[in-house]
Amino acid sequence: MEFLTDLLTPNDTKILLVVLDGIGGLERDGKTELATASTPNMDGLAARSSLGLTTPVDTGITPGSGPAHLSLFGYDPLEHEIGRGVLEALGIGYRLKRGDVAARGNFATVKDGVITDRRAGRIPTEENERLCKRLSETIETIEDIKIHVKAGKEHRFVVVFDGEDLSHELTESDPQKEGAPPAVIKPLAKDAGKTARIVNRFVLQAQEVLQTEKRANTLLMRGFASLPDLIPFPEQFGLKPGAIATYPMYRGLAQLVGMHVLQTGSTWEDELHTLADNFGNFDFFFLHFKQTDSAGEDGDFDRKADFIEKFDALLPQILDLKFDVIAITGDHSTPALLAGHSWHPNPFLLHAPATARTEGEPGFSERRCARGILGHLNSLEVMPLLLAHARRLKKFGA
Amino acid sequence: MEFLTDLLTPNDTKILLVVLDGIGGLERDGKTELATASTPNMDGLAARSSLGLTTPVDTGITPGSGPAHLSLFGYDPLEHEIGRGVLEALGIGYRLKRGDVAARGNFATVKDGVITDRRAGRIPTEENERLCKRLSETIETIEDIKIHVKAGKEHRFVVVFDGEDLSHELTESDPQKEGAPPAVIKPLAKDAGKTARIVNRFVLQAQEVLQTEKRANTLLMRGFASLPDLIPFPEQFGLKPGAIATYPMYRGLAQLVGMHVLQTGSTWEDELHTLADNFGNFDFFFLHFKQTDSAGEDGDFDRKADFIEKFDALLPQILDLKFDVIAITGDHSTPALLAGHSWHPNPFLLHAPATARTEGEPGFSERRCARGILGHLNSLEVMPLLLAHARRLKKFGA
Repeated sequence: MEFLTDLLTPNDTKILLVVLDGIGGLERDGKTELATASTPNMDGLAARSSLGLTTPVDTGITPGSGPAHLSLFGYDPLEHEIGRGVLEALGIGYRLKRGDVAARGNFATVKDGVITDRRAGRIPTEENERLCKRLSETIETIEDIKIHVKAGKEHRFVVVFDGEDLSHELTESDPQKEGAPPAVIKPLAKDAGKTARIVNRFVLQAQEVLQTEKRANTLLMRGFASLPDLIPFPEQFGLKPGAIATYPMYRGLAQLVGMHVLQTGSTWEDELHTLADNFGNFDFFFLHFKQTDSAGEDGDFDRKADFIEKFDALLPQILDLKFDVIAITGDHSTPALLAGHSWHPNPFLLHAPATARTEGEPGFSERRCARGILGHLNSLEVMPLLLAHARRLKKFGA
Repeated sequence: MEFLTDLLTPNDTKILLVVLDGIGGLERDGKTELATASTPNMDGLAARSSLGLTTPVDTGITPGSGPAHLSLFGYDPLEHEIGRGVLEALGIGYRLKRGDVAARGNFATVKDGVITDRRAGRIPTEENERLCKRLSETIETIEDIKIHVKAGKEHRFVVVFDGEDLSHELTESDPQKEGAPPAVIKPLAKDAGKTARIVNRFVLQAQEVLQTEKRANTLLMRGFASLPDLIPFPEQFGLKPGAIATYPMYRGLAQLVGMHVLQTGSTWEDELHTLADNFGNFDFFFLHFKQTDSAGEDGDFDRKADFIEKFDALLPQILDLKFDVIAITGDHSTPALLAGHSWHPNPFLLHAPATARTEGEPGFSERRCARGILGHLNSLEVMPLLLAHARRLKKFGA
């Protein structure tokens, strides 16, 4: 990475990284979602582009969205782990600062000191929101640490400890089974004593607030985590990056690596307007479309293919902006036939009119990508490739 | 590897790894052995499977059977070296225990204290067997160490030192040239003193036994080695593995990584019966066919192609067992045109009806594999890939 940074040279080229989340798939009647969808624009673009396949982490490994995006952004997910508390905070749109410690919380039911329901009967989200509001108002600070309690869905919430000298090196209070009492949280590192003390005091104070509740009369905490320590994207790659995504998790992941996250509406058309409106303000855009993944997760092959067609129809608007380098790919595959993330490599299209070798024949599918000019890449190779095609990397050696 | 082990999740899927030893080849009249052979069953299966090429160690490296199999089994052969003594012991079917030290022996001729023939005139195997029997009966133990002397072919044999506190860190007694005396064996590590003393005493006692022999009146020892220290296959991959192979070396390699080696007959049909009979008892099978390699080693292109055709005819029996995941590949290439192992990547076919992307067109050859969906893999990636397709790996991160 330092090697790459040493080669950076600025210019005024513009790069677009389009992530069709989970676009890679598996075959129904011999055709994947991408091969099934009618995509005349991408097919035509493929003839004037290079194709390949990317593996997000390693052969056979199915990544979550966190590691898959980190890798695409050029950060090795095996080196920079994103803890559960951080992911949960990103998922509800909480903007963590460096030094914050975030944890996942569950409302739970306790009787005679032991847990009788780890999920408090999956209380409705509205009840959760009411309880988090009460906790936030009642427990604003402990010692010099600010406490933020944010509701998620059903019984899940996030607690953020915000202040100096905090550590995420803590045991969990969730015993992971019913019939046991909640555990006292203990420090796992020398400098985690203060955080353990504060978290345990938070739990005690929260239990007082909750004691009159019927179901959610206690809480369990786990997945303590802080933002990973990484060189911010602008510094690492010499780019001014703008991120366009509608879902909190992806906005959070972009922010976490140091991208500027743009305000946008909730539709794909909104995202494209945001892209066009901000075209002059950034030299790298991360443009994220979520629904291909959601349809894959739901096992809905046809809906996923429909979303791919929808993107294809929008593609000319993107091409009209005249980026120097465009990549169209996924973070990981989400085959509808598996109704979940998978380990299959992602289709990858690299369009760089001035610098890319081209396939010469139309067609964009997993099979075409497997035989593509770029071959098989690790997702970590994408950023160097985009920088090269943007002519932003100097010669190495003489 | 630890990373992979953390992701393991058990289920009841079944995996088959078929090794057609040395199947990869070179072209005669434009076609390799595999492309020349008529293989309608594999050709058809390829259309419903993913193809690729695997490199056992590294580009341009020709591996022996030991490193090539270790790599396929998921163990880095550059980390886990199998010494010559161990390979030789495996090759004659001796079952080494952890802690044993094995060495290769040569019967040799000595006159006036110097070696006049390092191979004792390549004495017949029967004479070798007679001498090894005498040595075994005369020298049963030295100090607390048991001594096992086992004949190989011609002048070659194996000595195993069996007991506590042994080390393979020793110099060799074979001076590798004639006209020199056999060397005294010296320890190469602090804790190898005891072993050096015992080995030198063994050599002296053996020379006494052999002194009346005309040709084989001394012995030379080299390649001291112990079993590599590796995490057993069942623990490493969460599988219950059964190995089916007819040749001692491959049975030994399977046993060495912790597979259960099944009793089987000497023919390929016997091996298939063993597979069918044990189908319910294991969830991973290593099924090894030797003769493709032997024909390649003999430079017999047509015989090698015939054996490939023979396997193809047996393939339907294998498919009838309904494995969830089948890989058909080689350990290394053995082109008949080179009459030996080579560095060329192995054809690799992955059949996983529920989870694999497919080629869509029939044909199984090195050329088709080079353009296959899986691209170029290192053999070390095979086990993670098989585990993924068997749905035995959890998602990494969220």
